[in-house]
Amino acid sequence: MKRIAVFTSGGDSPGMNACIRAVVRTAIYHGIEVYGIRKGYNGMISGDFYKMESSSVSNTIQKGGTILKSARSKEFMTREGRERAFEQLKKYEIDGLVAIGGNGTFTGASMFSEEFGIPIVGAPGTIDNDLYGTDYTIGYDTAVNTALDAIDKIRDTADSHERVFFVEVMGRDSGYIAMPCAIGGGAEIVMIPETITSIEQVIDTLRNGWERSKTSFIIVIAEGDEEGNATQIAAQVKEALPQMDARVTILGHVQRGGAPTAADRLLASQIGIATVEGLINGKSDVMAGIVNSRLVYTPFKDTINKKKIINQRFVRMVEILSI
Amino acid sequence: MKRIAVFTSGGDSPGMNACIRAVVRTAIYHGIEVYGIRKGYNGMISGDFYKMESSSVSNTIQKGGTILKSARSKEFMTREGRERAFEQLKKYEIDGLVAIGGNGTFTGASMFSEEFGIPIVGAPGTIDNDLYGTDYTIGYDTAVNTALDAIDKIRDTADSHERVFFVEVMGRDSGYIAMPCAIGGGAEIVMIPETITSIEQVIDTLRNGWERSKTSFIIVIAEGDEEGNATQIAAQVKEALPQMDARVTILGHVQRGGAPTAADRLLASQIGIATVEGLINGKSDVMAGIVNSRLVYTPFKDTINKKKIINQRFVRMVEILSI
Amino acid sequence: MKRIAVFTSGGDSPGMNACIRAVVRTAIYHGIEVYGIRKGYNGMISGDFYKMESSSVSNTIQKGGTILKSARSKEFMTREGRERAFEQLKKYEIDGLVAIGGNGTFTGASMFSEEFGIPIVGAPGTIDNDLYGTDYTIGYDTAVNTALDAIDKIRDTADSHERVFFVEVMGRDSGYIAMPCAIGGGAEIVMIPETITSIEQVIDTLRNGWERSKTSFIIVIAEGDEEGNATQIAAQVKEALPQMDARVTILGHVQRGGAPTAADRLLASQIGIATVEGLINGKSDVMAGIVNSRLVYTPFKDTINKKKIINQRFVRMVEILSI
Amino acid sequence: MKRIAVFTSGGDSPGMNACIRAVVRTAIYHGIEVYGIRKGYNGMISGDFYKMESSSVSNTIQKGGTILKSARSKEFMTREGRERAFEQLKKYEIDGLVAIGGNGTFTGASMFSEEFGIPIVGAPGTIDNDLYGTDYTIGYDTAVNTALDAIDKIRDTADSHERVFFVEVMGRDSGYIAMPCAIGGGAEIVMIPETITSIEQVIDTLRNGWERSKTSFIIVIAEGDEEGNATQIAAQVKEALPQMDARVTILGHVQRGGAPTAADRLLASQIGIATVEGLINGKSDVMAGIVNSRLVYTPFKDTINKKKIINQRFVRMVEILSI
Repeated sequence: MKRIAVFTSGGDSPGMNACIRAVVRTAIYHGIEVYGIRKGYNGMISGDFYKMESSSVSNTIQKGGTILKSARSKEFMTREGRERAFEQLKKYEIDGLVAIGGNGTFTGASMFSEEFGIPIVGAPGTIDNDLYGTDYTIGYDTAVNTALDAIDKIRDTADSHERVFFVEVMGRDSGYIAMPCAIGGGAEIVMIPETITSIEQVIDTLRNGWERSKTSFIIVIAEGDEEGNATQIAAQVKEALPQMDARVTILGHVQRGGAPTAADRLLASQIGIATVEGLINGKSDVMAGIVNSRLVYTPFKDTINKKKIINQRFVRMVEILSI
Repeated sequence: MKRIAVFTSGGDSPGMNACIRAVVRTAIYHGIEVYGIRKGYNGMISGDFYKMESSSVSNTIQKGGTILKSARSKEFMTREGRERAFEQLKKYEIDGLVAIGGNGTFTGASMFSEEFGIPIVGAPGTIDNDLYGTDYTIGYDTAVNTALDAIDKIRDTADSHERVFFVEVMGRDSGYIAMPCAIGGGAEIVMIPETITSIEQVIDTLRNGWERSKTSFIIVIAEGDEEGNATQIAAQVKEALPQMDARVTILGHVQRGGAPTAADRLLASQIGIATVEGLINGKSDVMAGIVNSRLVYTPFKDTINKKKIINQRFVRMVEILSI
Repeated sequence: MKRIAVFTSGGDSPGMNACIRAVVRTAIYHGIEVYGIRKGYNGMISGDFYKMESSSVSNTIQKGGTILKSARSKEFMTREGRERAFEQLKKYEIDGLVAIGGNGTFTGASMFSEEFGIPIVGAPGTIDNDLYGTDYTIGYDTAVNTALDAIDKIRDTADSHERVFFVEVMGRDSGYIAMPCAIGGGAEIVMIPETITSIEQVIDTLRNGWERSKTSFIIVIAEGDEEGNATQIAAQVKEALPQMDARVTILGHVQRGGAPTAADRLLASQIGIATVEGLINGKSDVMAGIVNSRLVYTPFKDTINKKKIINQRFVRMVEILSI
Repeated sequence: MKRIAVFTSGGDSPGMNACIRAVVRTAIYHGIEVYGIRKGYNGMISGDFYKMESSSVSNTIQKGGTILKSARSKEFMTREGRERAFEQLKKYEIDGLVAIGGNGTFTGASMFSEEFGIPIVGAPGTIDNDLYGTDYTIGYDTAVNTALDAIDKIRDTADSHERVFFVEVMGRDSGYIAMPCAIGGGAEIVMIPETITSIEQVIDTLRNGWERSKTSFIIVIAEGDEEGNATQIAAQVKEALPQMDARVTILGHVQRGGAPTAADRLLASQIGIATVEGLINGKSDVMAGIVNSRLVYTPFKDTINKKKIINQRFVRMVEILSI
């Protein structure tokens, strides 16, 4: 392994820069040259490469976003696109790739590696924490803390007024972000895709609370909940309980930004080192992750197909703590 | 003046507790007893009073919300309601009132003071900064910083993707919150009630940017904008420019919470002192404010009827700085 | 088990309130009465007990410090003190205790439990993360993030000036706080009690950097480092390298405060539940902790005597990442 | 005016980048070319110039530090140094300068402008707020909020323990930072250079508090206080009151960093515009500032020689609010 390249793909997440930094410095530490590819697979196809030095990643560990930019690429989904990408890698004499992203990124990487024999090791960069093969994904801890900080602020004002607050958080098809936000934010109700909470149940809980003169509620809703988004759910609740003043907060992309937390910087740094040392040791078609504090390499096909299940302990916790 | 009472009314704002604290300690400093009234005019009517000591406000200066709770009162809008409130004040031998709130609060206070001759001095507690008679209202600086922090996080991710972000901020019928958020957040477009920005103008700006390959935009929208809310505006833009990926953030009540900034604590403390010393000096039917670093008392009728106009310098600044 | 009591002891840490809240609500959930004891063992001796309800812990999960106050008790170190404490427990008919604190707290608890047969389960509440039997202690994640935030701010200014910054962080006799701060803060040097870094090595590194015209450095020092505190180390460096402008930051108790992070709230909530359910299931003389995402009860004598060793992976990471 | 240059000098402050951004974009808006000079007067002497475009300042408004770097220059204090600097300006055909910094910066600028006839307009960039001619300096509001956030965290823990906390904040020879920190942080004592507070007074206050069983105190000390620094004062207090547990926090350069607050971004943007438009309108040897919400140009000799006096209202406020 003489020269590797690194890129970020899909939705960005806080800590991606800390991961890129670790990749670059670990490569240099081991005497390997390293290139950055801008804008994910699109930049790989168009040849948007540049040589990175240790100083290229100075003062980036604390920055949100990704200095390599990111994108979703339709062209890479075609055989022609991947051929063009491989031509670029040959031109730049790249022996191995580090792919930082989520499931979509690894699906592309897996095909690419199989078709063209280029070694690829992945790093789990997504706020959604929905990847099998790692306890936490890079950016997840930051996103949860950002959402929780917003809920804390809402709670300040909730106490003064008789209101129901609906807070929609991210997480694609999972409640990984919603669950700790609900527990840590002291929410009364959490609605996540993994469990069924009907609008009727929500209305019942609110009505019962109202009758016991509890008049302020926080409801955390995962964006992928089966009952719809926060605006839709709030509208149905307002119709059933017109006496309650319902307000909606949609945090949106606020959750993707911000300086990464300490945990995300450490995780990103460890995984960044592991991707490069994995490539050196002949690994490919795998994602580096941390499971039970240990470094683990999981085949892409498992990270893509196996489902990580939210700890049932958390579901029970909401029941106990909202007493 | 032997005994006064203090209450908060209307929407809460960060710094209300710092103001209550200053009222309580200034009263005690001058040998005056002080009562807290819970839940605004509702509590005044129902007699929800309690004696406050210096220690009642210990460790509250940094807290969001209001320890006295707040509410909007329909009953106080009636002559009967106000009579019942006055009965309570007589019962507790209250000689003067400090009312912390916004325009609605002062409208009620003005009527009440006129009808029953009870001296009332107001403190401008609202995040909206829409009160004539003070350069800044208590909570405004905090709300702006909270919204700006959210926009900073969006900007982190905006740089990596080709996207249009619509961020809806509070401010009722004014652009006071939206304007500094747009300038401080480096937004490309700001939509406020005070100026007309049509959907067509927005679409033109985005299309022109897109054609110059500028593909990431932040648009700050004041909740009271004449073109509708962020969700509605985003929908129209998506229809006209389907190639652009538009995302919506609605901060909502997040902006009302959080620890008050240094500026809000100082302002709240100064104004809290001024309300009590105003009562001592025979003032009534006025709001205490700070204009050009000087303490000013403005008649309630002026704070209610006169309009504070957003500095035109700021409108020009957006034009220059978004070059 | 009909009635338990909970107290905090030793240095406070962010998340203690979240743990108290979980203890209170879990007890009530299981039909057990719960008392709070104020000021640790001192309050146990003096009988500073009060009955807690679900509402006693409303709106506390996000608060730093401890609503039960904390203290170090000399009297409890004596047999007489402990006898008086036990009398109080008998008087209040307490069947079991939850002790939230660190090593000193558990040493007292272990003696007390042995002597008087009262069941006690501990919760690891300390920012130092130096307790065997749990991967993380309650408050550790918050303290690290607070220190890291300070280092980020120093880095902003470090880049503009030719300066050496010495930042002293907490951690008693361990480098658990210093290490992630150094890695996450991109520090050039870390000085922790577990490894020997001589002043000469520091001076050499700085001199070599200076000669390669690297002129800005951040050095993170654990308060318990064998070479002295930050002020002492900085003085020695200044003497050897008078051309360098050295500045000292001592964060001190800033690291103990602040709203707990999401991770600390979750950890504290899980452990709080586990302490009560441990008591119910007949456990005593043990601390509840989370190891590899699983709940573990460790005998007090092990948490006190066994040493948790900092992951050697981290020491190597500093070497690679500071390239 | 065809081409101007901008530089930052002296200690950096949050908001300097927002000011540079406004200078660059205002110049371009008016059809003027703009150069950046790196490392203050040192870079002016050595010719470290580069042409800036609108995109040079993209995504910088929220960043702490200064993208132009800063330095203190001994060489510029000599006639020879200034001659060399002027040669560079001639070479680059610079018609006017914007100097962002404090008193030292303006002293140099004033000499330079007089000797060589080059128009210079200054912007007040310092966290110390000690410049005559502006209500607030760029960076002051951010520094105060940073220090206050630290004091809030200390207060969380102060409530649980019997302790005296000494917190040293910046501010050179003035109490501008210490005063709002003390008021906003609810400190019991503030020690600033402008007023005499002897160690004996501090000890008396603590002893009296102790005797009334008030056992937790926060003392804010300005770094330039006549009684010494926090470590020295704490040592004297410990000697006199050995029963009290005294802890020291020295925030140091933490106060110089961080994302600027909304107020600092607005101030920096307004002043940045004003410096360029001042140069266009023939101003020189003046600093742009905001006094009572209005733009004011003050001769350098006044900003250097006249003293801005801390509002006496604040001194009285501490007395009232610490009751």
